[in-house]
Amino acid sequence: MSYLTSVSLCFLLCTYILADKSLNEVLINGDYDFIDLTYPFDNQTIYWPDSQEFQFTKKTAMFQRDGSWYASNDFTAGEHGGTHIDAPYHFLVDGLQVGQIPLNKLIIPLIIVDIASKVNDDPNFVLYKHHMDYMLNDNMGKPCLIIFKFGWSKFFLDKKKYLGINNDQLNFPGLSAEVAEWIVSSYKNVVGVGVDVASVDPGSSTDFPVHKILLGAGLYNIENVYFQRHIPDHGCTALVMPMKIAKGTGAPLRLVAICPKHKPEYF
Amino acid sequence: MSYLTSVSLCFLLCTYILADKSLNEVLINGDYDFIDLTYPFDNQTIYWPDSQEFQFTKKTAMFQRDGSWYASNDFTAGEHGGTHIDAPYHFLVDGLQVGQIPLNKLIIPLIIVDIASKVNDDPNFVLYKHHMDYMLNDNMGKPCLIIFKFGWSKFFLDKKKYLGINNDQLNFPGLSAEVAEWIVSSYKNVVGVGVDVASVDPGSSTDFPVHKILLGAGLYNIENVYFQRHIPDHGCTALVMPMKIAKGTGAPLRLVAICPKHKPEYF
Repeated sequence: MSYLTSVSLCFLLCTYILADKSLNEVLINGDYDFIDLTYPFDNQTIYWPDSQEFQFTKKTAMFQRDGSWYASNDFTAGEHGGTHIDAPYHFLVDGLQVGQIPLNKLIIPLIIVDIASKVNDDPNFVLYKHHMDYMLNDNMGKPCLIIFKFGWSKFFLDKKKYLGINNDQLNFPGLSAEVAEWIVSSYKNVVGVGVDVASVDPGSSTDFPVHKILLGAGLYNIENVYFQRHIPDHGCTALVMPMKIAKGTGAPLRLVAICPKHKPEYF
Repeated sequence: MSYLTSVSLCFLLCTYILADKSLNEVLINGDYDFIDLTYPFDNQTIYWPDSQEFQFTKKTAMFQRDGSWYASNDFTAGEHGGTHIDAPYHFLVDGLQVGQIPLNKLIIPLIIVDIASKVNDDPNFVLYKHHMDYMLNDNMGKPCLIIFKFGWSKFFLDKKKYLGINNDQLNFPGLSAEVAEWIVSSYKNVVGVGVDVASVDPGSSTDFPVHKILLGAGLYNIENVYFQRHIPDHGCTALVMPMKIAKGTGAPLRLVAICPKHKPEYF
């Protein structure tokens, strides 16, 4: 087909394409919410204490001689701050780097495990398997991303509280090694694990067993997920879209959930 | 619902959720391709000549005393290199900054206008309206992103060729101001314009009228789109997922197309 024909047909058909039962129709007909689970990158973004914080290194913002506006910046940042992904390579020498993670692990059904009421703002809470005795060991059958909600997003603007900084120690909730082992051994279809705190390990951890277990099994981690509004615990699709740093150990992440506005009838 | 009930039901129902005609089912049942339109960020990523190139500023990659691996980096970059978004604020003083662009403009039907055969590798090609005489001025009726394919991705690894560097001049294809005016005046539903070259303006431009017209009208631009394989000219959904730089004039972008594997029957 010539490009002219292609172009003209393309534009002619635009209104009709969407009359078909297409993905585009599904997404723009108002039945789904787009929920941003990402903190903005600015001078309040939380980084691990020894990491480079986000900052502009050169800022241009001025009117030109012809009266037009022009603005452009350079910036610097650590890979592991704000809402970000940990690639397996972060803790696994032959693990995937950020640029190698396949898209079918990044556009993925999302399961939210909301344990905020159990955590109850306790920075020493650690999630063990007994907290989830009612969960079955059955394989879930489909690939998915699990995000644990500890209820910590409300502290993000208070870095001392969010990280639980006390002298050189940190204190915030996290997963136990037991839960990490359980996920990788019983749920082979889980491709990644996210948390709404600064680390999948509890803040007090110094040897990071949860990182080692999850990344060691080839999963990716997502840290500092931003829960600013209600999100259904199932039925959403996660868009896990890291900056494509080819050899990245991690990267700033745009994390979005596409969620049905109405609960499935069977629920 | 208690968190225990919620968690257990969630896990119990995982296999059944996807049996419903849900977005998750649509996306993982194999009828759609996920196509990455993003160049990796590494030391070959192309930046505008006066911009900070992508580079790691601190690299840690070593085995620890306990034998485990640990790797983590800091990095620096310009906002406007590699595959990236231009926010309206880049050329419009009261335009949206990157962190302000709403998600319903970033998860969006995608139209590809393939003019590569017309360009025929000519770095001086400029797209005018007469190249698209067969296009109608009818409003397309639905929000969409248009990406123009000039056939330039094959030169990306050769910076001199890709930018057409000749002394202090650049030469690569681009849009005319005429086409930009036409889009913003006739197609109010177009939310953004992308190109597979380093700028929406031709490389030889020094006053950037296309930037001024498109960003001035509140659209965003996408530059350095990576076409590494065939992509249908309609029917795809674009995921336009910039790093969420709150006050960014632009940002590194993860750009992905979700495309039906089979053409719609009417085509």
